[in-house]
Amino acid sequence: SNIFDPTEHPHRRFNPLTQEWVLVSPHRAKRPWQGQEEVADESEKPAYDENCFLCQGNTRINGEINPNYTDTFVFTNDFAALNEQTPSFENHDPLFRLSAEQGVSRVICFSPDHGRSLPELSLSEVTKVVQTWKQECDDLSKTYAWVQVFENKGAVMGCSNPHPHGQIWAQNQLPTLAIKKQNAFDEYKQKFGTNLLADYVAKEIASEERIVVMNDDWLVVVPYWAAWPFETLLLPRFNIQRMTELTPSQQESLADVLKQITIRYDNLFKCSFPYSMGWHGAPFDGESHEEWTLHAHFFPPLLRSATVKKFMVGYEMMAEAQRDITPEQAAERLRAQPSTHYKAS
Amino acid sequence: SNIFDPTEHPHRRFNPLTQEWVLVSPHRAKRPWQGQEEVADESEKPAYDENCFLCQGNTRINGEINPNYTDTFVFTNDFAALNEQTPSFENHDPLFRLSAEQGVSRVICFSPDHGRSLPELSLSEVTKVVQTWKQECDDLSKTYAWVQVFENKGAVMGCSNPHPHGQIWAQNQLPTLAIKKQNAFDEYKQKFGTNLLADYVAKEIASEERIVVMNDDWLVVVPYWAAWPFETLLLPRFNIQRMTELTPSQQESLADVLKQITIRYDNLFKCSFPYSMGWHGAPFDGESHEEWTLHAHFFPPLLRSATVKKFMVGYEMMAEAQRDITPEQAAERLRAQPSTHYKAS
Ligand SMILES: O=P(O)(O)O[C@H]1O[C@H](CO)[C@@H](O)[C@H](O)[C@H]1O
Ligand SMILES: O=P(O)(O)O[C@H]1O[C@H](CO)[C@@H](O)[C@H](O)[C@H]1O
Repeated sequence: SNIFDPTEHPHRRFNPLTQEWVLVSPHRAKRPWQGQEEVADESEKPAYDENCFLCQGNTRINGEINPNYTDTFVFTNDFAALNEQTPSFENHDPLFRLSAEQGVSRVICFSPDHGRSLPELSLSEVTKVVQTWKQECDDLSKTYAWVQVFENKGAVMGCSNPHPHGQIWAQNQLPTLAIKKQNAFDEYKQKFGTNLLADYVAKEIASEERIVVMNDDWLVVVPYWAAWPFETLLLPRFNIQRMTELTPSQQESLADVLKQITIRYDNLFKCSFPYSMGWHGAPFDGESHEEWTLHAHFFPPLLRSATVKKFMVGYEMMAEAQRDITPEQAAERLRAQPSTHYKAS
Repeated sequence: SNIFDPTEHPHRRFNPLTQEWVLVSPHRAKRPWQGQEEVADESEKPAYDENCFLCQGNTRINGEINPNYTDTFVFTNDFAALNEQTPSFENHDPLFRLSAEQGVSRVICFSPDHGRSLPELSLSEVTKVVQTWKQECDDLSKTYAWVQVFENKGAVMGCSNPHPHGQIWAQNQLPTLAIKKQNAFDEYKQKFGTNLLADYVAKEIASEERIVVMNDDWLVVVPYWAAWPFETLLLPRFNIQRMTELTPSQQESLADVLKQITIRYDNLFKCSFPYSMGWHGAPFDGESHEEWTLHAHFFPPLLRSATVKKFMVGYEMMAEAQRDITPEQAAERLRAQPSTHYKAS
């Protein structure tokens, strides 16, 4: 046919947050897969594992003993990528530019229960995770301009421990993605006078096409420019710049939407769904940053099943991210999942 | 100590080609690895495999039969991500920006021999690969502004077939990374009046610290801003903008340096070393582009051994690429490898 059809024809979509394009090749989903398969994580895990260095009472690699914690537990990463004591140094040569960086890396255990990840925790347990994120941001934002809250889940994502946990890295300078987003929010504000993501939320709610789950305060969409097959964007339906500004009721509604999206993820391929997720909010630099909207990304690697992932390699590494199914198709499949966890039924 | 030491202290380095930063955390290399291990590719492969859809005389998925080719063999990808016939279409909404894309995807078999990859081919066989790359660029550049030559190698990189092969995707619009590089070359030229990578080559040759291999025409360095542990950058020691401009003797010296770097890669962990590699040259848009220098990247995933890779996840996906050993340490280890392939000795 001679009429452009986004579910058939290769096209590029523009990510307004990173100002980068994504190649969408819908018909490529038909190719058979003969490559590497991952090991699916479908095992039942005990509530306590004596070999886990995140379980309560166990000794970590550096000799410290974990307390008998009852909800969340935060400690400094034993092999931190960032350090408070790093001496300052800068090299300004345009081809050999270097800047010393100060910061901290912390680990957050979400629960003492070794065997239950976010979708299997109760609403009050997930609320406690959100409260801990907020408290850590309150604390670290006194010293650092950027506080990166993230969770890296599943062996396929390089996570070496199934105990439910996330990380927080804080640092003085804005990392690459934060710089890109600051530019994007600034340019949009200058051009249109409004907030990029607030405008986007309104349009996605009106369209409904890409919505996966929603409650009174939050919505989750497969963004129009998603690169990973089942990538989602978690957005507030109210004006907020940073995690430190969350009210108690917004913390609880956030816990609700986090449970909703992670349950659907687990249900999609009937496995503990791997992903990297993380939060982006305005820098802690003393400015108000009304151009910013707090939001979170989920970047899950799986494409076809619990064992077949999307490889972002070759063309993707050399030229541009590329996806095989459309974001609308992905949203439809996630939305169609039951709201109860498959293990609970 | 209070004096900054790049082999001890966390710091960021700036990639002048992408204008993005990389976090370097040298001391993190000490952490023990308890996570996912890959399957090392150490198997001997036969020269012909009846189940391989790239071997000569075999039938591909779409029913076509491969010819009895004697050196390289090029065909259109059976599940191409790009299509010549895609109808034109554009959507200019700043939050829902879409652009239809025309192009082609081809596969290049490097050799009829199923069992030998680039480092194990003879100099004249690799020269034939370079000639084929050039011929394809000659051909596709008549129609398309961007011709992306790349090789995706190893199961861990999502390559589903060990038969030595690469791909060429050509398209009308510049992909994301090409846009970034065009900006970087332009800005550098405007600011300093010279060519970014020509200046960089001169400084790396003077310093020697990051050089892995070199011949009269080419050098390979672990770039100052490398993100992947053993990432390298292949650079010309002469002025050239595009692969289509390579003389016969430059094609042969390129084959020599390709053999040299891939042999050292295989020797490092005594395995068929996985990577994505690809070429970047000036766009085919009718301009001369003196600000550009032709170059190639190798992005290999392995970090510690044939089975332990670096995961670019979590912080890396949410904030910034991060590496555990310094580029100088990586260069030293690669440079120290024997120049003869470990299987040949
Ligand atoms: O084209 P192939 O080898 O089937 O597929 C491989 O390379 C492509 C191009 O880099 C990627 O998009 C795929 O994710 C990868 O599995
Ligand atoms: O910190 P971990 O869990 O040991 O390590 C994991 O997450 C880090 C932060 O995203 C990454 O840099 C590592 O590559 C990954 O294996």
